Amino acid sequence: MTLTVFFSAPAVWEEYRDLLPGLLAEAGIDARVVTEASDPAVVDYIIYAPSAPLQDFTPFTRCKAVLSLWAGVERIVGNQTLTQPLCRMVDNGLTEGMVEWVVGHALRHHLGMDRHIVNPGHVWDATCPPLARERKVAMLGMGALGTACARALAALNFNVVGWSRTEKTTPGIQAFHGEAGLEAALRGADIVVTLLPKTPETENILNAARLSWLKPGAFILNPGRGPLIDDAALLAALDSGQIGHATLDVFRIEPLPQDHPFWSHPRVTVTPHIAADTRATGAAKVLVENIRRSEAGEPLLHLVDRARGY
Amino acid sequence: MTLTVFFSAPAVWEEYRDLLPGLLAEAGIDARVVTEASDPAVVDYIIYAPSAPLQDFTPFTRCKAVLSLWAGVERIVGNQTLTQPLCRMVDNGLTEGMVEWVVGHALRHHLGMDRHIVNPGHVWDATCPPLARERKVAMLGMGALGTACARALAALNFNVVGWSRTEKTTPGIQAFHGEAGLEAALRGADIVVTLLPKTPETENILNAARLSWLKPGAFILNPGRGPLIDDAALLAALDSGQIGHATLDVFRIEPLPQDHPFWSHPRVTVTPHIAADTRATGAAKVLVENIRRSEAGEPLLHLVDRARGY
Repeated sequence: MTLTVFFSAPAVWEEYRDLLPGLLAEAGIDARVVTEASDPAVVDYIIYAPSAPLQDFTPFTRCKAVLSLWAGVERIVGNQTLTQPLCRMVDNGLTEGMVEWVVGHALRHHLGMDRHIVNPGHVWDATCPPLARERKVAMLGMGALGTACARALAALNFNVVGWSRTEKTTPGIQAFHGEAGLEAALRGADIVVTLLPKTPETENILNAARLSWLKPGAFILNPGRGPLIDDAALLAALDSGQIGHATLDVFRIEPLPQDHPFWSHPRVTVTPHIAADTRATGAAKVLVENIRRSEAGEPLLHLVDRARGY
Repeated sequence: MTLTVFFSAPAVWEEYRDLLPGLLAEAGIDARVVTEASDPAVVDYIIYAPSAPLQDFTPFTRCKAVLSLWAGVERIVGNQTLTQPLCRMVDNGLTEGMVEWVVGHALRHHLGMDRHIVNPGHVWDATCPPLARERKVAMLGMGALGTACARALAALNFNVVGWSRTEKTTPGIQAFHGEAGLEAALRGADIVVTLLPKTPETENILNAARLSWLKPGAFILNPGRGPLIDDAALLAALDSGQIGHATLDVFRIEPLPQDHPFWSHPRVTVTPHIAADTRATGAAKVLVENIRRSEAGEPLLHLVDRARGY
């Protein structure tokens, strides 16, 4: 029987329209992909972006799984009408893009590039930066993305420590966890990267007290989720010099409103939620693989644990 | 008998004064380090920087080796009075610093960071850069530094090709060599890194014809030697847009003169010869190891081949 796959992410349909049918056929799956669900009761799978209008999953009585196009699922995981298995997106392109953004901006701050990029006085100041091995980097969040970034930074000799809510070990990376481990991870750090999921426990995890643990003049990189950082505490720490610079890719409201102080703060760089974009080529393969697994009765990839929220 | 080591690099003596005696003693070498050679005939080893006043090596009749503090030796290799073995400096700190500078600036250009670092209009343009795997990087020079940079870029999935004057192979890096291989290495490259020694053969190796082989809008990184690039050809290619940006760490005259067009060109970033600074801690160990080897009759590390010039 032909499966019905409802693609509920109108903003990116163009990127997937020509990719999905071929990949489904290659995987031996007889399916049609639709962008309107006039009869929800016939839909077998939903491909979903939180920006889509769909909010009530109740009518999708036959749906076997909801496949998110996003890695972060906080806008859907609490939806009471969603009773089907929910899968996050984890694809190579997303991971690679994230590693490139994190390593690039870590090196930018480490090397003090900005003073050369903007140097109207043509100052030749041959002061050398320290080596990466002299910089402590705290990676908050050691999921797939955090671990990939931690490994890439460690390969460049950065002194990387990882922190996660629950205990996790990664070869070659000193690991801390839980409330007790957070201070050890952050204390004296030169660079902090926030790559945690947004949950009630992680909201404002970087607050005034924790920012004060870092080395004075430390750099913050947030490619994770806007609410991981207490905005007011960050602005105060930037003004005092406790934080030397913050490069932020995610915000409580996106696009970042024009009147937000981050835009004009001299020690803040705003990047427009581009650190880890889902690339259609890789993502489409993950979607099709999960449909294949579901049909074959195999475990789904990247299944969300509703209790943890990610 | 106590050896006499003449430290002929006054500008950096402060960094080495407290390091060298302890390391020599640890290596079991009975030596005194002096900063004046009132009697050149008693000097056993010369530690040398090209910025030092010493140019005539004739009076140093007992000297067993000249140990350069610099990786580049073009300012001394042709000195006819220098008949002793000459060693270049290759230390971990130098290599690590070079890798950090090259990877950092490659990622900066790859990610298009500058438009976020300087964004007075507060433009939120969520266009994503391509992935590193979609960028061809040509590494000109596959010596110790070029190979380390090529490997680090390849680890981030950049599509790296290496080029050297004579044939060299590096696992995982596509290799080209000689005049015939240069076009294949450069053709269609998104990023070119010049890490060749300065010799008559490499002077102006990036000229107008070769710049035209690159992908339009390509980025140039020169942390090697100023004369590797034809300055006038580079400026013309920047003006035409064939080259999107050049980030240059080395120049024909240093510090770069204030009236040089590189300073004010909007598509040029000048960094003040900081990509790979010799760090005293690592370099002092290499110096002492070479004195130990010489005294023990073992082969010297990083011995310069006068015929090749490096």
